[in-house]
Formats: sequence, C-alpha cells, structure tokens
Amino acid sequence: MSEIGAAEPWAVRETALPGDDGLRQAESIFALANGHIGLRGNLDEPHAGGMPGTFLNSLFEERDITYPEAGYAFPERTETVVNAPNAKPIALRVGDEPFDVRTGTLTRHERVLDLRAGTLTREVEWTSSAGVEVRVRSVRLVSFPRPSVTAVRYSVHADAPLRIESDLVVNEALPSERDDPRASAIISTPFRSLSSDRDVLVHRTRGSGLPVAAAVIHTGHEGTVVTSLDLIRWTAEGHGEITFDKFTAYRWNEENIREQALKDRDAAARDGFDVLLAEQRDYLDEFWDGADVEVDGDPEIQQAVRFGLFHVLQAAAQAGPHPIPAKGLTGNGYDGHTLWDTETYVLPVLTYTHPECAGMALRWRHSTLDKARDRARELRLDGAAFPWRTISGVECSGYWPAGTAALHVNADIADAVLRYYAATCDEDFMRSAGRELLEETARLWKSVVYFDEENTGHIAGVTGPDEYTALMDDNVYTNLMAEQNLRAAGSPVHLNMPYDEKREVHDQSAGFTRLPAWDFSDEEYPLMLHHHYLNLYRKQVIKQADLVLAMMKRPDRFTLDEKRRNFAYYEARTVRDSSLSAPIQSVLAAELGHLTRAHEYLAEAALLDLRGSGEAGGDGLHIAACAGAWISLVMGFGGLRDHDNRLSFAPRLPPRLSRLAFGLRWRDCRLSVVVTPDSVTYGARNAPADFRHQGHDVHLAAGQEETFPLDPVEDVPAPPTPRPPRTIAE
Amino acid sequence: MSEIGAAEPWAVRETALPGDDGLRQAESIFALANGHIGLRGNLDEPHAGGMPGTFLNSLFEERDITYPEAGYAFPERTETVVNAPNAKPIALRVGDEPFDVRTGTLTRHERVLDLRAGTLTREVEWTSSAGVEVRVRSVRLVSFPRPSVTAVRYSVHADAPLRIESDLVVNEALPSERDDPRASAIISTPFRSLSSDRDVLVHRTRGSGLPVAAAVIHTGHEGTVVTSLDLIRWTAEGHGEITFDKFTAYRWNEENIREQALKDRDAAARDGFDVLLAEQRDYLDEFWDGADVEVDGDPEIQQAVRFGLFHVLQAAAQAGPHPIPAKGLTGNGYDGHTLWDTETYVLPVLTYTHPECAGMALRWRHSTLDKARDRARELRLDGAAFPWRTISGVECSGYWPAGTAALHVNADIADAVLRYYAATCDEDFMRSAGRELLEETARLWKSVVYFDEENTGHIAGVTGPDEYTALMDDNVYTNLMAEQNLRAAGSPVHLNMPYDEKREVHDQSAGFTRLPAWDFSDEEYPLMLHHHYLNLYRKQVIKQADLVLAMMKRPDRFTLDEKRRNFAYYEARTVRDSSLSAPIQSVLAAELGHLTRAHEYLAEAALLDLRGSGEAGGDGLHIAACAGAWISLVMGFGGLRDHDNRLSFAPRLPPRLSRLAFGLRWRDCRLSVVVTPDSVTYGARNAPADFRHQGHDVHLAAGQEETFPLDPVEDVPAPPTPRPPRTIAE
Repeated sequence: MSEIGAAEPWAVRETALPGDDGLRQAESIFALANGHIGLRGNLDEPHAGGMPGTFLNSLFEERDITYPEAGYAFPERTETVVNAPNAKPIALRVGDEPFDVRTGTLTRHERVLDLRAGTLTREVEWTSSAGVEVRVRSVRLVSFPRPSVTAVRYSVHADAPLRIESDLVVNEALPSERDDPRASAIISTPFRSLSSDRDVLVHRTRGSGLPVAAAVIHTGHEGTVVTSLDLIRWTAEGHGEITFDKFTAYRWNEENIREQALKDRDAAARDGFDVLLAEQRDYLDEFWDGADVEVDGDPEIQQAVRFGLFHVLQAAAQAGPHPIPAKGLTGNGYDGHTLWDTETYVLPVLTYTHPECAGMALRWRHSTLDKARDRARELRLDGAAFPWRTISGVECSGYWPAGTAALHVNADIADAVLRYYAATCDEDFMRSAGRELLEETARLWKSVVYFDEENTGHIAGVTGPDEYTALMDDNVYTNLMAEQNLRAAGSPVHLNMPYDEKREVHDQSAGFTRLPAWDFSDEEYPLMLHHHYLNLYRKQVIKQADLVLAMMKRPDRFTLDEKRRNFAYYEARTVRDSSLSAPIQSVLAAELGHLTRAHEYLAEAALLDLRGSGEAGGDGLHIAACAGAWISLVMGFGGLRDHDNRLSFAPRLPPRLSRLAFGLRWRDCRLSVVVTPDSVTYGARNAPADFRHQGHDVHLAAGQEETFPLDPVEDVPAPPTPRPPRTIAE
Repeated sequence: MSEIGAAEPWAVRETALPGDDGLRQAESIFALANGHIGLRGNLDEPHAGGMPGTFLNSLFEERDITYPEAGYAFPERTETVVNAPNAKPIALRVGDEPFDVRTGTLTRHERVLDLRAGTLTREVEWTSSAGVEVRVRSVRLVSFPRPSVTAVRYSVHADAPLRIESDLVVNEALPSERDDPRASAIISTPFRSLSSDRDVLVHRTRGSGLPVAAAVIHTGHEGTVVTSLDLIRWTAEGHGEITFDKFTAYRWNEENIREQALKDRDAAARDGFDVLLAEQRDYLDEFWDGADVEVDGDPEIQQAVRFGLFHVLQAAAQAGPHPIPAKGLTGNGYDGHTLWDTETYVLPVLTYTHPECAGMALRWRHSTLDKARDRARELRLDGAAFPWRTISGVECSGYWPAGTAALHVNADIADAVLRYYAATCDEDFMRSAGRELLEETARLWKSVVYFDEENTGHIAGVTGPDEYTALMDDNVYTNLMAEQNLRAAGSPVHLNMPYDEKREVHDQSAGFTRLPAWDFSDEEYPLMLHHHYLNLYRKQVIKQADLVLAMMKRPDRFTLDEKRRNFAYYEARTVRDSSLSAPIQSVLAAELGHLTRAHEYLAEAALLDLRGSGEAGGDGLHIAACAGAWISLVMGFGGLRDHDNRLSFAPRLPPRLSRLAFGLRWRDCRLSVVVTPDSVTYGARNAPADFRHQGHDVHLAAGQEETFPLDPVEDVPAPPTPRPPRTIAE
C-alpha cells in the first residue's frame, strides 16, 4: 500500500514509510525530472528497496531481440533505457549504526512533493537501536532551468558521532526483472568506464556506445573523496549535525561532455542551492500561470490534475528536442519507449499549456524522419512509417500485430502537428519540420489506401487503438485520421466508415459488430493476462477507446445521435484494460450528458497512479493518464474541441463540481475559462482571442472578459458498462 | 548442384560427388528411415561436409522460447529433434593417408538408392595422393521389419596397408545454424552419459530427460574396441582388403533400453546382413504390391512418384504409434515437428496404400489427446485443441497468427479419421481412438462457432491454410471442414460460405476479394522473405491452395461452374510459396480439364526435392510434397475422391501420359486401376469392391476386372497464374 495522505491542493504528501509493495509506486509518484534527467523517488540511503532509477533521456542500451519464428523486417534490435550514473545514494552512520529506517524506531517519515517548488522534501525522525534520536531532512530537486543539474540539501541532527558517505555510482546492482510482459528488460552493468577522477566519471554504454559524463561536488561541509572506475565517494564526519549540499551535472550524447558537465556542476555549486530553489519556483510559477486547472468540489481531483500536469511537464520539459517516453523519466516501464501516447495524449495538453515543449517534441519526431523513411521502404510503403515504440526513432516493437500494424501512429503525429500549428501559428516550425511530417505521413497513406469500384477508399489489415482487435479492415479511427492527414497534405480523399444499418452504429472496424459477443461474467482484469489474443481478437471485447476516440478527434464526421448510439454500444463492450481509455470515455460521456459517469472516468484516470493499488505505476507513471486528467476536465467538462483549426467550448459541470477554472494558450493569448453550474466566463488576459462558445463565435479584445449563462444540465444516466469505473471510496 | 542421374524406374542414382551446395540436398534424398530411425545420407567417412543426422522418432530436446513481447498462453518451451548417437562414421586410412574424396583423385563416385531393396549403396574408386588405387563399397540399410536396427556392409580393396576406425559417436560437433527462420535450432551436445562400455552407450537428453541406448557390433573381421563416455570405436587393420558388417540397435523412450538394444543388436548380427537384406526386400515387395503407381510417358515422374512413396513409407512406417514429422526423419527442418501436413497430405496416401500406418499415426494423435484438452482449456475453448507444431503433443508454435490461430488442424485430424475409417472399417480403431478424436474436435468447434440472427454459423478470427492471410472471418476451408467434423460427431450445422456476388466467386475468407490487389511484377520468391506480413496479409496474394483445397475436400459444396470460376480467380493470385500448394492445384486443374497445367504442377511437386535447386530439402525432404506426387496422379488424373464414405473415380490422362496404373486398398479389397487415354480398367484382386466410376455405381466381384471406355478429353487452356510452374527443362 502507498501511504499518500489526504489531498492537498499543491502537494503530495506521504505520511509514513510505505510497505514493500507500495515502495516502487511511491518511487514513481515522487520522481523528479526536467525532461532530460529523471530521478526516481528512491530513499537517500542506498539499497533501501524498490527500484533504483536515474534516467537520462535518450541514453539507452541496445540489445538483440529474437523470435521463436522470425519474419521479414521484424526488428532485430531494441533499445532499453538504462539506469544512469546515480548520485542519489547518501549513506549515514550514527555512532556504530547505519541509518536504516527498517531497523530502530521510526517516529516520523514524511515526504512531500511540492508542485510549486518543484522539490521533494523528506523528513525523518528515527531512534537507533542504541537509543540515539536522529533527525534527517533532505530536499531534492532536478532543475528545470538547468537541464543538466540535480541537487540535494541534506542535513542530519543527532547527539552522536555522524559519518556520511555520499556516492556517485555507476553500474549499481538492480533487483531482478519481474514476470510481466509489459515490464522492461533491465540491463545490468551497461557502462564501461572511459575516465574517472575525484570530480567526474565518464562512461560509455557497451552496446549502443553512447557517452555520459557525471560530475559531482559537495559543499557546506568538509569531506574527503575517494574514487574508482565506477564510483566517486565523498565522506564527511561530524558530531551533532552535518548539513551539506550535493550538486551533480550530467552531459551525454554530445561532444565535450566531461568539460560541459564540470562547467554546469561548478556553476550550480557557485550559485548555490538556494538560487536553484528560487529558479525552480520561478520556472514553475510561469508554468502554472498558463497551465493551472482549479477544481472546486473534489479535492482529490484538484490534487490529481495538478500532480498530472506536474508530471507531464517533468516528462516533457525540453531544452532541445527529445522524445517523451510513455513513462516519462519516472521508471523503466516499456523499456523507456515513446509510443503514440505522446502525440495523442501528452501533446494536446502541452499545446495549450506549454506550447514550446509540444513544438520541440514534434521537432524530435522530425529528427527521426530518415529512420521512418527507411522503415517505410523496408515495408514497401511510401513516405514515412514512424515506429510504434522507440527511443532513437527505429522500430523496437516485437509484436507486429499490435505494433507495426498500428499505422495510425503516423496520422496521430500529423494530427499533433496540425493542432500545434493551429494553436501557435508557429510558421518556423511548419516550414522546418511540420510540413514535411504532414507530407511524408500523407505519402504513407497514399500507398496504403486503395479504392473500390465505387471509388470509396479503404485501408485493409491494420490495427487501431483498441489492442483487443488487430489486423482489421477499415478501422474507423485510422480511416478518419488518415483522411485528415491526407487532406492536410493537399490530397483529400473519402475513406469508408463501416456502418451497421441494423444496429444503427458504426463498426469500430469492418464487421466488428457481427463478431461473437464476449462473456463479461469473467472478471479477471486485465483480460490479456488471462486470455489468448485468439480469443480476444475474434470477439466483441474492447481494451480501450477506439471508435470513441474517433468521435472525439473527428467531431465533424458524426451526428449527435450517432455519437449517442455509438457511445452506448461501445461502452457496453469496453473494459478499459489500458490507462488510455478512461479519459477519452470521460470526454464523450460529458459531451453526451452522462456527467457522473464522466466524473467517474476522470477519477479513474486521474487517481490511477496517485491512489491506485500498490501494483500501479511501479515501473513508472502512466504519463498519458496524467495528461488524461487535464483532457477529461478541459475537453470533457470544459467542452474544448480544436478540430479543423477552430477552438470551441461547450462547458458543463458534473453535479459534484461547483467550479472549474483553467488557463489556455491560444496563439498570442493567455485565455482564462471559469465554469460554474450556471455560467462561464472567458477572459483574454493579454491579447485578443477568437473562439466559439456553444456553437457561436466569440471575439474578445485584449484584457476583456465575457460571461455567458449556462442552462442547467441534466445528468443523463449512463449506458451500462461491463466494468464499473474504478474510483476511490470516499 | 545435385548430381542425380537420368530417371530410372526403381532407383535414384547419383553419378558424381555433389559440390558443397548440393551435399545437404543429397543427404536428404539418400536418407534411409523406417519411421523410427532415420539416417541422413552422410558419406561414411566422418566430417565429410553437409549436416550429420541420425534421428530417432520422438527423441527430442526441450528449450525455452522467449518473445520480445510475450502474451498469455504463448508457448514457453519448444521441442527440437536432436542428432542421436551416430553409427555412420567409418574412417579409412590407406597407408599413411586418410581416405577423403576431396583429396587424391576420384575416378568414380556413385550412390544408388534402391527403392525395392531399401538400401543405399555407394561405390567409390579413388587414387590416393601416394598413387594407391582404392575401391570402397558400402551398403547401408535401416530395417523396416526391425524398427531398432540399422546395418552397413563395408568393404575396401587397395594394395596397401588398410586401417578402419568405425565409430558410434554421441554429441558430435555440428555445423552452425543457417540464417533462415524456417530452419531448425541445432542443439549442441544434447546428451549426458549414463553408462558406457564396449557394446552399448546409454545417454539421456539434458533437458527433456529422454533415455537412449545404442548398441553396436562389428562382424566379419577382427578388430579391437576402445570406448569412452561418448564413443565406441572399433579399429581393424589389414592389407589388400577389409570387409565387415556393422550392426547397430537403438532403444529409447522406454524401459530396459540397454538390454533391449543389446538383444536387438545380437539378433541382427546373428541373423546376418544377408538376412536383413532379404527381409527388407520382402517388406518392400509387400508395400509396392499395394502401393505402386506406374506412369508411362514421363520417366521423371515415374521415378519421382516411387521416390515419393518410398520416402512417405520411410517417414510413416510404424511398429507403434508415433508422429510423422513434416520432414520425416530426413533432416532437422521445422525442428522435427509434425504439422497438419501429416493428416492432410500424408495420411490420405497411406490410407489407400498402407492403411496400418495411417491408423497408427492417428492413434499417436489420440495418445496426445490430454495435452490437446489442456491446450483447449488454456485457450478457454472446449474439447481438444491440437497443436500446430509439435513432437510430443504440446503446442510448439512461436508465431500464433500462423500457428495457434490455424484451428483447422483439428478438423484436418477429424477428416483423416473419417477417411481412414471409410477405407478400412477399422472398428477397433474407431472405438478406442477415432470416435473420441471426432467428438473432442467437434466440441472445440462448438465452442468456436457462433450464430448470427439469421442462424447462420460463423467462425471468426482464424487462419486458414493460406499463410499469406491470417486472422480472418469465415475462412471457407475452415468452415467446411469444421462443418464436416461437427456432422460426423452428430452435430450438423450450416456454416457460412462467403460469396462475392459481383465477381461470382467464393471469398477465401470473408471480404477477401475486396482486399487490394497484389503487384505481381515483383518476382522475388518466396515473398515472405521479401515482404512484411503486414503487406502480405492485407492484399490478395495467396501462398498456397486454400479455397482450392476446400473444393477438393468438400466436392459436395461446389458446383462445377463455381469450381471453374473459383479456380481461375485464385489461380491468378496464388504464388505457391509453400510446397503444399502445387499438388492440390494439380488435382483441381485435372478435374477442370486443365490437363497440361495439372501435369506441370504434378512435376513441380514431385521433382521439388529430387531435382530442385541445391537449396531444396537441405534440412530434410518435403514429405507432403513426396505424398503430393501420388495425390496429383491418383486424385488428379485418376480422379479419386473419397468424400462422404464413398470411393469414386473420374480418370483423365494429360496429353503426355499414355498410361497410369495404381493399386489401392479399399476395405478388404486390393483394387487395381489402369488408365489409358481411351479406357480405364478396374480390378478387384482379392475381394469384392463397390465404388463409382464417373458418377455410376460399379460393383466388382473378387477377382473380377471391368473396363470402361473413356471419352477423349480436351486439354482446356489453363487460366493465368502469376508464377509459372517450376518444371525441369527436358
């Protein structure tokens, strides 16, 4: 169990030491990152359980993958994020005894993730076996404005001799792999040493050959340093109190890493910990000013949406283009790979809250274009075929029916380009990256789409978002997204939307509604751990929003009645075994007036990692679900849509919420939206803004606010679902 | 290149030593086996290139298989046939020089596989570097009547000191694996020694723990024996001539193997090589009496059909139930696994030529029923789900879309049961095995079939015979075979046969004819080595007969016009990248009057291994293609059908053949059929027989012959095919 305390608006507080089963989850929740460096929330003292994790974005090892029965163009190498040089360990001895919270008497153990300060603070009161009372306090940060720097301020008080051993360690031992196909491969001893001295360790990954330098310095207390190939150890002694600051700087995957790391370390140490703290708060103040969401009436959701936004920022902050992994930099789940989650779930949030990061993430995609072109050629397709899973841009998916066959990732990238451009009018991006992404993905679709005798376009044999069906024809989501992609590249086509006349619903893919029914009396979730794909694929059981996602992304292609019927039909067949599902179902539920259901799905997504079972998020947070809380609130209850270059709102609050307020960046404007049960107020804080409110055009001058009354909304009873929303008992 | 000489009616002759690229193929062609023991045609002297191979049916090693992304119920272990203790190596020294055909001067090197004697004879004339003329002759046999025994008679003449080292060797070194996903994993040093003495070696496989004893004795010349854990070496010396016989007996996977092996060895040695030769010929005389096919007008086909029948017998001869691997016991291709080839291609031949073996093979399937029940339970299906690939009966397929999803293997087994029972009326088999096989496979189908509102039955998401499509709905072959399976078990249903009204053809699977076309200008075959499955699956390109096979198996469900239109449609889309395709296309081509095309496909199948390129069959013969020659001749040109408990004929010869004669076992009768261009003569040699000739009932009394005139047949031009039949230039 995790030990997360009652919801606070701007902090996540752990009020006791979690048990073994909650430790990994807590390490993910309390992870700090700045998009470049990620530190799992490991305790300071080494070997304190859980899963150590220091991640440097795009620092990965390669390994061979083999198949029992290989096939043409099955990837033969994969990439796995590695545990980078770790500067977290600080061992403390009190008298003759090691400070170890699993021994002695633990009077108090509290950790606070401060969402405005951008710090993780830990306070411990502990009595050793010998009866010595010890107080330890540490404040850890990963600097947003200094993408190479981490720091910690550590202090201990005890009436006893004290000894600190503070390490920078490489190739540390890791617990063995768990038996879950979704967990990542853990690579042991990935680094070989290039140089080592008392200031900096330089290593290179053995297989992928990527270089990394880590420089460390301790200030505020005298100490001595010993070093070996894989270790710098600073040792300090004292009595009564020791307080020191530790600054670490990483440089990797570039030139002159040793010198750069030393320079960054020295600058941080020179400026000092307090300056780093102040810079961190400034950075976050600016972020929250544009991104904050206020939720009145549900403190847990209030906390969770900020927690989610904070972790989205931690995953996505960019000083230069890099991928945004599905787990951010909070764990090694999915091998540290980036999936379609980025463009479909994370970038929409960033586009309206921190657009520079969205643009940079798309520039990273663009930087991998040649690899995507190579992959398309290998697949005998035109244009670019972006990977289903990757770190560097090469396809790393080892199960092609739910990997390479999910061609929709290419349209998802195009969709993110279009949305980013609509929201920012960033011409430079469009010229140097966006246009080419649109055109190359459109070329892919042109080589995939075929036309029947009636000149209707089709896409055969691909996998849509729902991973409980595969290799289907005319997946509506894929077809509509490809259609949009082609139109944006100047090649409009009309692609088939299979429709079941009898049931009056769209087929998720051709023939779907005629497949055999699933027996939902079986309640072992996730179903994929209890059923063979043979069984799942050939029946009407859906892992995650697919047609429902299409209705959110392409509102122009469905009437309200169609949405209502489709939602009810698919709601009855969707089990949400993917964390990507609930936010989207929440948005459509809100649109269709199922407001309580929408709130429940919001909670399922928002609280998944923060208040889920001890299993949840142990190998890293679900960053898309973190983004999902914002999506549910802003696109669901705020009714934001951004289809076809136009921003629109249709707000409606669920019964339990009394107020929802959020900021948005739309072109030059910082827009504020405040929704109450009977009104909505839009404010253009700094520049004029045009958008639509409930179908009507609105223009605001700079500094203008306008309030519209809202009709009372009925909370329409939701259609049945086989799996009730997983929310927390209050 | 292989060095197979001109076609002879009863022998396959190699007239020179093949080059490196033809060596492995020749080793497969000249393999000897008796269903239990298989010896590849390795040269006598050790380390003479190629791939050593001594195979004991069902003696396998287990190994883990891993997946880049595993899934529920993906097999975690597989089975691989191992290279058993090898008694083939006989090293010769002439003076100071080793006898090595790659050195010195090779005047003559001839090997003859005698299809009536059941022996491989080798004659060599060689002059050593020192100028000594040497003649070596060896005659090798694997005894049909003694399933544990192999023997060789070896003689050498040379005017020089001679020294023989004749080995029984375990864990011999093997060449490394080739880079082809279809090739098997080679397991090195699979055995650990249990005991070792001058007579017998006893070992156990390291992983699977299967025991094997090999006893050896040399007679006819004095010699001395040394032994170690993995070796018995007999050394003999002489001058001018040495002649000796070597007898080996294997026992494995049972009790008292050491004693049994010694006993069998001693009995063989006591009776002597000449007795073994005589027994072998008697056994084959009896086989050929019931099985021979005579073909006038095409000597290569004449040779090839007997070669094929001989190898089918070698793969399938049974003193007790065992599997029939896809490569027989001629190589380690497909890891030595049994696939649906057995029931669909091999057992039909055996049912009419050597029914005891067909019954025994089905009893072997029955012996694995509990494993198939376990697999069905794991898949959440009822009844039995037999494996796609296996040695022991457990599923060993590592790519489920073309493995586990090919549920038709279960109906194929039921089909073989029905055919065997119709041909033999073997009540004991039906009572003790056949009935249960029918019922358990029918239970599987009952849990797979579902009914739509119109009460039409469907099967969704399975893979039919064609491996260039996968996970399709209503595969016609699967549906028709399941329908037959269910009816035979007393549960008649009507399953959907998707039909394209516009093109007036059946869909191979639902929607197939609406998939995009394949661009057949690409001519890199097999396509699977040049195209991703994503590309293959979603287009109209067919690896192997699928709907065409359905038309052969279920003639009752297609009109002649439908057959004609379907054949033309699928002929234009089938590339025959599987050796299982040509025989079936040949049968339908013959039925539809495309007689030259039928002859060409017959040749493609029949000559594949015997006269194919050096690549063909290097890791073992295509036993189904060996059976395919018989299928093409007897079912194609003989027009034999055996649907629904009735035997029928509709003979028609292609232009180049002047006569076709074959024998059949039908219930108690040995039936003879002699076809000429203008007549057919049926003879009931020993018992009365009932059958149909061209739709008319025929009854023959025991000993009676009856001749029917045949109308002249037109050789109807065949529809286009993207890949011309691969036949040999004359």
